[in-house]
Amino acid sequence: MNNLRINSERMLDDLNELAQIGATPEGGVHRPALSDADLAAREWFTQKARAEGFSVQQDGAGNVSARLLCGEAGARTVMCGSHLDSVPHGGRFDGALGVVAGLEALRTVRDSSLSLPVHLEVMSFTDEEGTWIPLMGSQALTGNLTTDKLASPRGGLAAFDARLAAAGTNREQALTASRDPQSIKAWVEVHIEQGSRLEEAGRSIGVVTGIVGISSYWLNFLGRADHAGTTPMDRRLDAMRGVAEFVQQSRELVMNRFPAGVVNCGCVRVEPGAFNIVPERARVSLEFRHADAGKLDAMREALLNLALHVVEVEGLGVEVEQMGIHQPAPMHREVVGAIEQACDRLGLSRTSLSSYAGHDTQMMAEITQAGMFFVPSLGGFSHSYRENTPDEDCIHAGDVLLHTVLQLAASD
Amino acid sequence: MNNLRINSERMLDDLNELAQIGATPEGGVHRPALSDADLAAREWFTQKARAEGFSVQQDGAGNVSARLLCGEAGARTVMCGSHLDSVPHGGRFDGALGVVAGLEALRTVRDSSLSLPVHLEVMSFTDEEGTWIPLMGSQALTGNLTTDKLASPRGGLAAFDARLAAAGTNREQALTASRDPQSIKAWVEVHIEQGSRLEEAGRSIGVVTGIVGISSYWLNFLGRADHAGTTPMDRRLDAMRGVAEFVQQSRELVMNRFPAGVVNCGCVRVEPGAFNIVPERARVSLEFRHADAGKLDAMREALLNLALHVVEVEGLGVEVEQMGIHQPAPMHREVVGAIEQACDRLGLSRTSLSSYAGHDTQMMAEITQAGMFFVPSLGGFSHSYRENTPDEDCIHAGDVLLHTVLQLAASD
Repeated sequence: MNNLRINSERMLDDLNELAQIGATPEGGVHRPALSDADLAAREWFTQKARAEGFSVQQDGAGNVSARLLCGEAGARTVMCGSHLDSVPHGGRFDGALGVVAGLEALRTVRDSSLSLPVHLEVMSFTDEEGTWIPLMGSQALTGNLTTDKLASPRGGLAAFDARLAAAGTNREQALTASRDPQSIKAWVEVHIEQGSRLEEAGRSIGVVTGIVGISSYWLNFLGRADHAGTTPMDRRLDAMRGVAEFVQQSRELVMNRFPAGVVNCGCVRVEPGAFNIVPERARVSLEFRHADAGKLDAMREALLNLALHVVEVEGLGVEVEQMGIHQPAPMHREVVGAIEQACDRLGLSRTSLSSYAGHDTQMMAEITQAGMFFVPSLGGFSHSYRENTPDEDCIHAGDVLLHTVLQLAASD
Repeated sequence: MNNLRINSERMLDDLNELAQIGATPEGGVHRPALSDADLAAREWFTQKARAEGFSVQQDGAGNVSARLLCGEAGARTVMCGSHLDSVPHGGRFDGALGVVAGLEALRTVRDSSLSLPVHLEVMSFTDEEGTWIPLMGSQALTGNLTTDKLASPRGGLAAFDARLAAAGTNREQALTASRDPQSIKAWVEVHIEQGSRLEEAGRSIGVVTGIVGISSYWLNFLGRADHAGTTPMDRRLDAMRGVAEFVQQSRELVMNRFPAGVVNCGCVRVEPGAFNIVPERARVSLEFRHADAGKLDAMREALLNLALHVVEVEGLGVEVEQMGIHQPAPMHREVVGAIEQACDRLGLSRTSLSSYAGHDTQMMAEITQAGMFFVPSLGGFSHSYRENTPDEDCIHAGDVLLHTVLQLAASD
């Protein structure tokens, strides 16, 4: 079993075939969730898996999966996979690699005539990228999807309903996709890194120790609208100065005190917003991430205190609106260990790191032993046609996934 | 003649009557240029002046004026006045005081049976506040209005045409309002201060030495859009940091190096403008003012160099778009002297200062000897129902205007 390897040519052929579906002229793919291209990719996956003799099913949330059953009716399932949808004009590796590698892992096990005590299942989740509802498929499977979330899809309700119908399902059915956690033994996902830490460190595999939690706020700095000519400089209460100070100091605070965290101020709106009026209200979005729940809390406290400090110094006011909190998802030690053993068995260099992006794995971590690993993405390009993972690394993805699944299947 | 005083009760009655037209519940007025309320205010002025026996006329730009003719056909005209329009939900003194004081000055001269060698004219200019075109009426009278400016009014062309028609004119007629500079001997305007320098200094009259020039730009800071999770903090090219640095440093620069200047960054727009994307492009409006042309040039150079310095430090790019330049308008020494003599004759304390706001006087300064003075505005409120100038100061406005006009009429 230690010598088992995937059929790398077969897997790379799959990856290339899949990249033709929704292909863009630049070399990426455009497969927003539930678009015609996304449905074509599911159909390709379905036909491919059926041709191999796997049982294929689509649940109410549109998640499509293929199973290699072990013959024991009460057996639990080791799951792997990722997603086939892309961001608009995205790359050919994000999500696709995890599904193709999973399919290849199942084929390799089937061809090996190994007898495992568990079912294997490779999953393609619906709308990981959030064309409609971020992580929709994995939210549905883990029981986190709600009628409310389904009622306010980003792309509009009428369009959402139409695209669900095109996929052969509807909102009501989407709520039926939750699974019994007891039926699932473990989950593992392979994904391109979306950064360049592996490339720079010269490592083949990044073993994810946790997926960051994300907190987001609107901070409304409040000043006073005044005539920008007649009001002396030292009499102004310029709300924009609050934003300017906050943007600069929040970055320094996070880099100095939370080196493993990140912060972004991505939107700013100023009112009344005229050349000749001192800003009365300046609104800035604040988003920060950390893989450690305690540190995420400490960041929140430090950043909101910073906002209070800034307004005290500047003589302004501030209103804080909490927008969202996603708790960090630590990866399960069993799966982390299985990935590490797989790397060691295959002689592949590895490093441990956090995922700074959200993934379906963070939902799966709520109901089962879950883990994830990355392979290098040259230049760190993400959500871009420039995504580029060399064949060798794609093959590593398949082999490490295979041996991780085997390890998880064999564990108690 | 030195003992001549306006009829203060008559003038205050006028001011109160006028404040009823377009009155807002809070005690201000809402008379945007060419609105029904603005037209009603012109009609009030017309009727008032006609009842006094003055000749009243409206020119093609909608400027309404009343004349006290001296009987000599070839005589030149000493003009005074201001505007009857207001910003939306503005105050009752801005503009109105200058027109009412001018009307009262003419009545006082008429009642005195003084014989002057010049005509007197009190003017109400159209759209000083820029509902459609800032300083439209004075631009028209001084030959600065163009077909282009008339074709892109702020409130939209169809609405503009409709409101011009309601005022009995049109765009073509507006271009006919220019006057022969030789026919005008001088111009003087009284206005509330729109600041609190007089109140704080305990002076009755602010003799304006110059009206600030105004330069305005869009600065487009250019970074790179990146994933706000997966991109390490020290690898980001965050365009918003350029804006933040510029907002802070431009203020310090102006306060330290140009203490008589002011600067404002009143609009900010960020693209793509998402919580989870590092800002690629951050656009900030820059407006700065100085009453000295050389200093205004030096500010421009220093501020644009600051933008270049900021992007060099931050590793960003910047695009500079010039939006508008209005040169400073120094006040004419004859008119400044006449105002000062009027104050001294009346025993009123005075100080010299710059006007940090634009006024019709800056246009008039292009074609004639022009000057301006301020009376106190309690608390410095401007463009607000909170504008408040005590009766005593309104009376000073009328008396100083009267004696300035008399002085200008008598000068060679």
